[in-house]
Amino acid sequence: MKVGILGTATVGRTLAARLGQLGHDVMNGTRDPKATQARSDADMYGNPPFRIWSEDHPDIGLGSFAEAAAHGDIVINATAGGASLGVVRLAGEGNLEGKVLLDVANPLDTSQGMPPPLLMSNTDSLAEQIQRLLPGARVVKSLNTVNAAVMVDPGRVGGGDHSVFLSGNDADAKATVADLLRSFGWTDIIDLGDITTARGPEMLLAVWLRLLGVLRTPMYNFKVVR
Amino acid sequence: MKVGILGTATVGRTLAARLGQLGHDVMNGTRDPKATQARSDADMYGNPPFRIWSEDHPDIGLGSFAEAAAHGDIVINATAGGASLGVVRLAGEGNLEGKVLLDVANPLDTSQGMPPPLLMSNTDSLAEQIQRLLPGARVVKSLNTVNAAVMVDPGRVGGGDHSVFLSGNDADAKATVADLLRSFGWTDIIDLGDITTARGPEMLLAVWLRLLGVLRTPMYNFKVVR
Repeated sequence: MKVGILGTATVGRTLAARLGQLGHDVMNGTRDPKATQARSDADMYGNPPFRIWSEDHPDIGLGSFAEAAAHGDIVINATAGGASLGVVRLAGEGNLEGKVLLDVANPLDTSQGMPPPLLMSNTDSLAEQIQRLLPGARVVKSLNTVNAAVMVDPGRVGGGDHSVFLSGNDADAKATVADLLRSFGWTDIIDLGDITTARGPEMLLAVWLRLLGVLRTPMYNFKVVR
Repeated sequence: MKVGILGTATVGRTLAARLGQLGHDVMNGTRDPKATQARSDADMYGNPPFRIWSEDHPDIGLGSFAEAAAHGDIVINATAGGASLGVVRLAGEGNLEGKVLLDVANPLDTSQGMPPPLLMSNTDSLAEQIQRLLPGARVVKSLNTVNAAVMVDPGRVGGGDHSVFLSGNDADAKATVADLLRSFGWTDIIDLGDITTARGPEMLLAVWLRLLGVLRTPMYNFKVVR
């Protein structure tokens, strides 16, 4: 499958590497590909510049947000939540029309120290905002409740015995994402309903971020025990 | 231990019955004890009137909110979240001074149909509001992320292999509540930190209420797998 990934930071790279490994034809999208390629310093988290990462992942393409969106049969929003609406606009409505747009981002206000509060009111979500902005795209929210490493390899926490959520208006789009999740190793995939249900997994970040402070590792997840 | 419970609905009754069974001296508090005693119809959920329930639980006292608060060495807020601040005011600052006030309520806006949104912004919580209103009380948030039946008997879901959270500014108060939780059967008790961390478990309700629609039973809980 052709996959376009909006974003070149940890989440975008981790998804790209795993999808490439699974045989998909992947292109990461960035605001300015030349600038991304030219960067030679590690980012604020100590991640190597994209160019260095790219040498280890020669099969992963790099283009603008619009090129990555045009490339994908399925497109993944892996940008910082506060920037996502602007990025999706740059990706272009036409390039996303009719496509599955998997949104894994969290709308966090990172300007106020840790832990960041949500940018969203309790009666909206980033996923809904993206869906309203792009009525022709088939937005599915998922994977935002775990760390990038766990997204693509759930077995790294508790042998994979934990849960992931799906929210979206289009049943076929959710089935496509569920197949992708299963290929990553996910087994307990819970369809919460339409795109408004994305509020729940986004608001889960409030307790997730506090657990990060308590557990001092991002390698955890919630299991819905029933 | 003497326990005052603010509220006489399902959560208040379930906690009272279990605490009585464990040998505690329990009094439920209500706005108008005579009116509560006089009621002869089931409530909107089909629960029998308090008087009928009371016949099966003769050791559980009934008083005003203020009397129940005065009775308890520890006091539990088991009222509807939208009413809690008013109830706590009626209970009386003096009757709660220095006491552990365990808040198990959820601030839900039940006026707008199902599922109810939270009444709270993302940068506040009911527990914090109660703590600000009563600076002398030692407020602890816990148990709000599960159904009443699971609160007092976690073994009814997945053999009890799931998690419960604690939030509060006073370490001794949290230790007292943790002992109470262990006496109910809880084993994975996670101290999230100060009272501001209550935002996380309160916001968890957004996904909890959607799961209620999907699973069609309230008998579930989250386990923090790590």
